[in-house]
Amino acid sequence: MASVCFGVDIGGTAIKMGCFDDAGKLISKWEIPTRKENNGEQILPDVVEAIYGKLDELSLDKNHVIGVGIGVPGPVFADGTVNRCVNLGWDVFNVADRVKELMNMPDLSVKVANDANVAALGEMYKGSGEGYKNIVMVTLGTGVGGGIILDGKILAGTSGAAGEIGHMPVEPTEEVSCSCGKKGCLEQYASATGIVNMAKIQMGDRAKNISAKDVIDLAKAGEEDALAVIERLGIYLGRALASVACVVNPQAFVIGGGVSKAGHFLIDYIEKNFVTNVFRPCKDVKFVLASLGNDAGIYGAAALILI
Amino acid sequence: MASVCFGVDIGGTAIKMGCFDDAGKLISKWEIPTRKENNGEQILPDVVEAIYGKLDELSLDKNHVIGVGIGVPGPVFADGTVNRCVNLGWDVFNVADRVKELMNMPDLSVKVANDANVAALGEMYKGSGEGYKNIVMVTLGTGVGGGIILDGKILAGTSGAAGEIGHMPVEPTEEVSCSCGKKGCLEQYASATGIVNMAKIQMGDRAKNISAKDVIDLAKAGEEDALAVIERLGIYLGRALASVACVVNPQAFVIGGGVSKAGHFLIDYIEKNFVTNVFRPCKDVKFVLASLGNDAGIYGAAALILI
Repeated sequence: MASVCFGVDIGGTAIKMGCFDDAGKLISKWEIPTRKENNGEQILPDVVEAIYGKLDELSLDKNHVIGVGIGVPGPVFADGTVNRCVNLGWDVFNVADRVKELMNMPDLSVKVANDANVAALGEMYKGSGEGYKNIVMVTLGTGVGGGIILDGKILAGTSGAAGEIGHMPVEPTEEVSCSCGKKGCLEQYASATGIVNMAKIQMGDRAKNISAKDVIDLAKAGEEDALAVIERLGIYLGRALASVACVVNPQAFVIGGGVSKAGHFLIDYIEKNFVTNVFRPCKDVKFVLASLGNDAGIYGAAALILI
Repeated sequence: MASVCFGVDIGGTAIKMGCFDDAGKLISKWEIPTRKENNGEQILPDVVEAIYGKLDELSLDKNHVIGVGIGVPGPVFADGTVNRCVNLGWDVFNVADRVKELMNMPDLSVKVANDANVAALGEMYKGSGEGYKNIVMVTLGTGVGGGIILDGKILAGTSGAAGEIGHMPVEPTEEVSCSCGKKGCLEQYASATGIVNMAKIQMGDRAKNISAKDVIDLAKAGEEDALAVIERLGIYLGRALASVACVVNPQAFVIGGGVSKAGHFLIDYIEKNFVTNVFRPCKDVKFVLASLGNDAGIYGAAALILI
């Protein structure tokens, strides 16, 4: 084995680690806990220790490492400086420089990007976005995240906030506040939380203790109120993606996150409303389900180095 | 004079021509008519003849030409192929190749892009977007056009339709169709046509024969119904730009086109609604008025060659 690359996806609870060969083939993946105490000062030393441990295991030394790609849960500037990762306790510092320092390899290629953007890159690199160069990944989880890849590269944006489509304003009459402080964000309808909240309004007492998965299962079984909830999700998300399409004119939307496990049933509702609202020259965009699941981050982090 | 570059902005009525030095200083500008007969077959020969005429005038020959940049009113692929310019009668062909052929200079640098995108590049190069690398230009004219510059380069999009923000869906209850066939596009409210249409609804008979400029002047004078129209424009445009901001996270919005002559009075209405709707990490975006007017196209076309 000539050389390896590490893809690291730092989350609030666990750090996913991947060791790849130089063609992007995953050799080994594992997880370590995220130690957030003392403003997360142990996180990067833990990552470096895990890298060394893996190198030992593979009978390699650090000179076999062609690079380390890292996804972090927060805004990142192009030079690798993070701008406060609240979930990790991190303030403002250069993650790339810190990793080079910890590995005592000043010339090592270390690239850092926002985790949602890195996941989008991963799907383009080895997932269902393979073969495309312009994609928008939409992650429907507890919230709604997004990542934009243009011409094969992450669009980070001026303040690292490009692709944050969960906070597009979609409902001017909303009275409840989003986690971001605004009212009527896409995330309030198209996330697991949003599904549950809409179900509570639609179903009243019957929605006590209901989960997003319950609502989706009920809708699939044809329950009318649950269908109305999914229809509403489709209207907001389809219309929002029609706006995104005439802004960046992508080849494909890659739909991921827990809610996307609803599969083509959900995609159909989104696409139906997309088609009605999209500007014709932008209409030939594919809707595909993400295929890498929780591994998108490590693949994308590796892709920061390998492509 | 060592070398010159030509910036050409082909419109449906006139072709604007600019001759620039290699530092992007405008040496001379002039216009020729757009001859659209026979599917516009004379347009490019006319452009080339105009270039030769100017070279003669400057006592230069064609070997002094470092390149020709061209803006065209329609979608353009990265290689210079236009995909039907309805306004010019053009079908599908490679404009760059055709110009090289007409000038008998196979190695000449000829770059072609959509006119709205080229105008955006022009404003970044020598207009009010100078100093920025990530801008979204919004042209409020008869319709609403847009152009996106990311990292100093035009974002063309997969089918050449990126930045077409005039066709973002903004009003799901609209019953009147947009020119594009959909209902409730931004262009139906934020253009000169939209202002007149909204005034007709708001003012009834008093709006007979009213122009967009009349409405703006009335609003500036404090007339209540006219103010309601401009308020409505501000709501739709402010909200749409808040969506654009969380997609591409630009440094600045450059507002141009005839309607933008309303100046800061108009910007204030847009910005007020933008601030309410924007995702906080994207909020530090500047709103500036375009400064190159009708020359943005020739400057941007030159910039295709010079930057």
